Amino acid sequence: FPCKEEANVTEADFFFSGLANPGVINNSVGSVVTGANVEKIPGLNTLGVSLARIDYEPGGLNPPHTHPRATEIIFVLDGELDVGFITTSNKLISKSVKKGDIFVFPKGLVHFQKNNGEKPASVIAGFNSQLPGTQSIAATLFTSTPPVPNNVLTKAFQIGTKEVDKIKNKLAPKKS
Amino acid sequence: FPCKEEANVTEADFFFSGLANPGVINNSVGSVVTGANVEKIPGLNTLGVSLARIDYEPGGLNPPHTHPRATEIIFVLDGELDVGFITTSNKLISKSVKKGDIFVFPKGLVHFQKNNGEKPASVIAGFNSQLPGTQSIAATLFTSTPPVPNNVLTKAFQIGTKEVDKIKNKLAPKKS
Amino acid sequence: FPCKEEANVTEADFFFSGLANPGVINNSVGSVVTGANVEKIPGLNTLGVSLARIDYEPGGLNPPHTHPRATEIIFVLDGELDVGFITTSNKLISKSVKKGDIFVFPKGLVHFQKNNGEKPASVIAGFNSQLPGTQSIAATLFTSTPPVPNNVLTKAFQIGTKEVDKIKNKLAPKKS
Amino acid sequence: FPCKEEANVTEADFFFSGLANPGVINNSVGSVVTGANVEKIPGLNTLGVSLARIDYEPGGLNPPHTHPRATEIIFVLDGELDVGFITTSNKLISKSVKKGDIFVFPKGLVHFQKNNGEKPASVIAGFNSQLPGTQSIAATLFTSTPPVPNNVLTKAFQIGTKEVDKIKNKLAPKKS
Amino acid sequence: FPCKEEANVTEADFFFSGLANPGVINNSVGSVVTGANVEKIPGLNTLGVSLARIDYEPGGLNPPHTHPRATEIIFVLDGELDVGFITTSNKLISKSVKKGDIFVFPKGLVHFQKNNGEKPASVIAGFNSQLPGTQSIAATLFTSTPPVPNNVLTKAFQIGTKEVDKIKNKLAPKKS
Amino acid sequence: FPCKEEANVTEADFFFSGLANPGVINNSVGSVVTGANVEKIPGLNTLGVSLARIDYEPGGLNPPHTHPRATEIIFVLDGELDVGFITTSNKLISKSVKKGDIFVFPKGLVHFQKNNGEKPASVIAGFNSQLPGTQSIAATLFTSTPPVPNNVLTKAFQIGTKEVDKIKNKLAPKKS
Repeated sequence: FPCKEEANVTEADFFFSGLANPGVINNSVGSVVTGANVEKIPGLNTLGVSLARIDYEPGGLNPPHTHPRATEIIFVLDGELDVGFITTSNKLISKSVKKGDIFVFPKGLVHFQKNNGEKPASVIAGFNSQLPGTQSIAATLFTSTPPVPNNVLTKAFQIGTKEVDKIKNKLAPKKS
Repeated sequence: FPCKEEANVTEADFFFSGLANPGVINNSVGSVVTGANVEKIPGLNTLGVSLARIDYEPGGLNPPHTHPRATEIIFVLDGELDVGFITTSNKLISKSVKKGDIFVFPKGLVHFQKNNGEKPASVIAGFNSQLPGTQSIAATLFTSTPPVPNNVLTKAFQIGTKEVDKIKNKLAPKKS
Repeated sequence: FPCKEEANVTEADFFFSGLANPGVINNSVGSVVTGANVEKIPGLNTLGVSLARIDYEPGGLNPPHTHPRATEIIFVLDGELDVGFITTSNKLISKSVKKGDIFVFPKGLVHFQKNNGEKPASVIAGFNSQLPGTQSIAATLFTSTPPVPNNVLTKAFQIGTKEVDKIKNKLAPKKS
Repeated sequence: FPCKEEANVTEADFFFSGLANPGVINNSVGSVVTGANVEKIPGLNTLGVSLARIDYEPGGLNPPHTHPRATEIIFVLDGELDVGFITTSNKLISKSVKKGDIFVFPKGLVHFQKNNGEKPASVIAGFNSQLPGTQSIAATLFTSTPPVPNNVLTKAFQIGTKEVDKIKNKLAPKKS
Repeated sequence: FPCKEEANVTEADFFFSGLANPGVINNSVGSVVTGANVEKIPGLNTLGVSLARIDYEPGGLNPPHTHPRATEIIFVLDGELDVGFITTSNKLISKSVKKGDIFVFPKGLVHFQKNNGEKPASVIAGFNSQLPGTQSIAATLFTSTPPVPNNVLTKAFQIGTKEVDKIKNKLAPKKS
Repeated sequence: FPCKEEANVTEADFFFSGLANPGVINNSVGSVVTGANVEKIPGLNTLGVSLARIDYEPGGLNPPHTHPRATEIIFVLDGELDVGFITTSNKLISKSVKKGDIFVFPKGLVHFQKNNGEKPASVIAGFNSQLPGTQSIAATLFTSTPPVPNNVLTKAFQIGTKEVDKIKNKLAPKKS
């Protein structure tokens, strides 16, 4: 991202209103992430911070994923969530959080949030990167282009080719 | 801040509920900042990110200040605010923001938020530091211990000693 | 890791012979990683670099995993491997590499190596961290303590509880 | 700042003679800063260090200011100065320094130097940034374009609009 | 080095086969370094890691040198070497290493490797920089263009002009 | 270096007067470096900047050396100097500088200063490290403890063992 001349910088470069409303959820996991990063707010360039809003329908899951470039800290705007991350010693650190609570997901570690309540939930997430990046684990392994070879997945999860194909089909983006 | 042994780390080290409710405003400027940084959340140590909640009564001001160690990005939880920062070229970048809006205050620059509305306002602020630090300009110059010499202040603001003393008196922390 | 007094530093702090021989493979995936990081070489403290040796039996897989704190660059000592990583745009970047070849796995991204040849294979891996850390995806999600909740896994992979339990059983560390 | 091809780099890119003589003081505070940063010395690009010379007439003040991107360390070339900075705990750390003395102003904190002697004074300042940037507090708050709103300043300094306007007039850059 | 659009990135950007064979030794010191850095592997850009292969004939020396931007960690592929570095307290840290051994040369310190065995030797070296840079001490001082003045070298090494010229002649690159 | 409690920090932690007078020159090269780094100024801890004063008698040389952890920028206090550094492409960048001039020596590169004038000279040097470290090339190679092996030095400089021993004797620290 190139820098603007300071003379041309305006307040619009530091402003974004796109997290004001819940994102539209339209997928099989029941959650949606809306970023407020350097792609939306040019003034964040080189500043090393960004926000996102995540909305969850009842039962919705933000499935296990990592951010290669940032730690995440969430503030619950509404509802209740079961959240967790796994350490490099394979220990699950998890908690139920509710409106107004804060939880931290350390840089690069696999983490998730699940709305086990009966109402929608939402959080504001802070990141120490202007563009944290995301790798959703299941999508990364089962829906990449080109696909990860079946013999990698069967050996990694100790399942059969048929089961791998079934997961690939279920997770494949819907064609329109 | 020393690191904990990983075996002893628990979910409590990554959790904080202290931003769930508005802070109590009890000062002459009409705003209060509640931090959710490494002093409250031990698990943030070395992770380089934190949050804060700021509450403003009608007319309340978070007076001009800097964070020596962080950029700040706010999300308006409630109400409306006039916000701004000044660049190193002495240009004011300002905007009126309302519920759901986001605004960025770049690292180390003087900035402020003013609630010119008739209702309380509040924001969640994200920082790319585990302990961003704050220097409130007026308090720094007029209420430090020991005090900044009068001849520095009269020359800097081009005012008389009497006016400096008046400001010092007004800004002095209330004795109980 | 605390620093030693310079007067007490010796050549032993900068030396390690533990990668000279192949590691012993004794698991269901058919590969083993032997680290040469700051835990083995005290002199690496604060220097931000380390090595590892990975050995693969024929058919062996270093299953999909991430290093939260480092980029990895491998040099093939022996044999042939199919290697790959997935970008944050869900694109698989993969290649067959053989003795003497080099391949790079960028920081934080999910990657794997598979020995599809008929002979053992081995690589030396360089990392730009004194302790890169590893999260093996399948183990992280299916064998952590305490376990990741079934309803997170069923929703993430779109499989049934029975299938989740089957994977958990297969991947569980053998009891002795 | 783009990088030059190494083949075209010459000694002129690493040289600057502009601090050899005192700067010309022509303002109401009685001091002037002359930078020797990447704007004057192209070879400093990406190297993270720079110098400046500050000259003070008798009674001259380098008014309270911050450097958002650097710590400053001064060496007194001539004369005597009263110098100080304020910590984030609102403690003033100050000292009288004379020819040959060194003093440190930590990154991002408000600091000042005042020549209370009867002779001119001068210092060489080292910064750990190729372009440290400066925010002079009084100028930032009372002379920016557009101006900081009066209701922010009256509330911050607990003074009247009339007093704010008086300061603004006094500090306004002279028109020619 | 500019970044490629992610859409255009291919596996070739992360692959290099140029370390598969020994480098050709054709100089008076009897060793040759072959780099696998960002100049050869475009995908290393911004990733902060690289490899190199060093080959030594019997008696060959990789003469005393520094890497201004990286720590080096070597793995011996073949043969035996006497290796060492000197600390900023002027202490030599040295050791004889053989096939499979690892040794670390901390960032910026003068170091060397000497093959005192009767067979060729080779190592793979990891660096925590995408382009570590090298300054070979003797070549830097005695063969630069333009030359380092004789009176610097005679005083530094306490030798005569004649001896300086002799070294310069011996070390000068062969003309063809 | 451990951090002090902020409550116990005083102005003495940020002050040093040890560069006010020329250092005492008592060696064969005719120059002396006096540091003003974190070992002398505890308040520099974590701040990444320091100063030094270098004094040269007529004919004095600050012999070729590197700073593994910092770029250096000098300001000439008095006299005239011939200064230079060598790039990683083996190009000498050199210049004659006089009172008030500034010159930059990029991080990690071999550099020197020589007083070819008839009067003493002195400089103030700024570094972007709290403890830049120094490796003086000739001393590093010819006076370390234990010594660098003769066969490394004869091959590196293409000189005989007798000449190596002669240099070692000349450069050896005087016994008292």
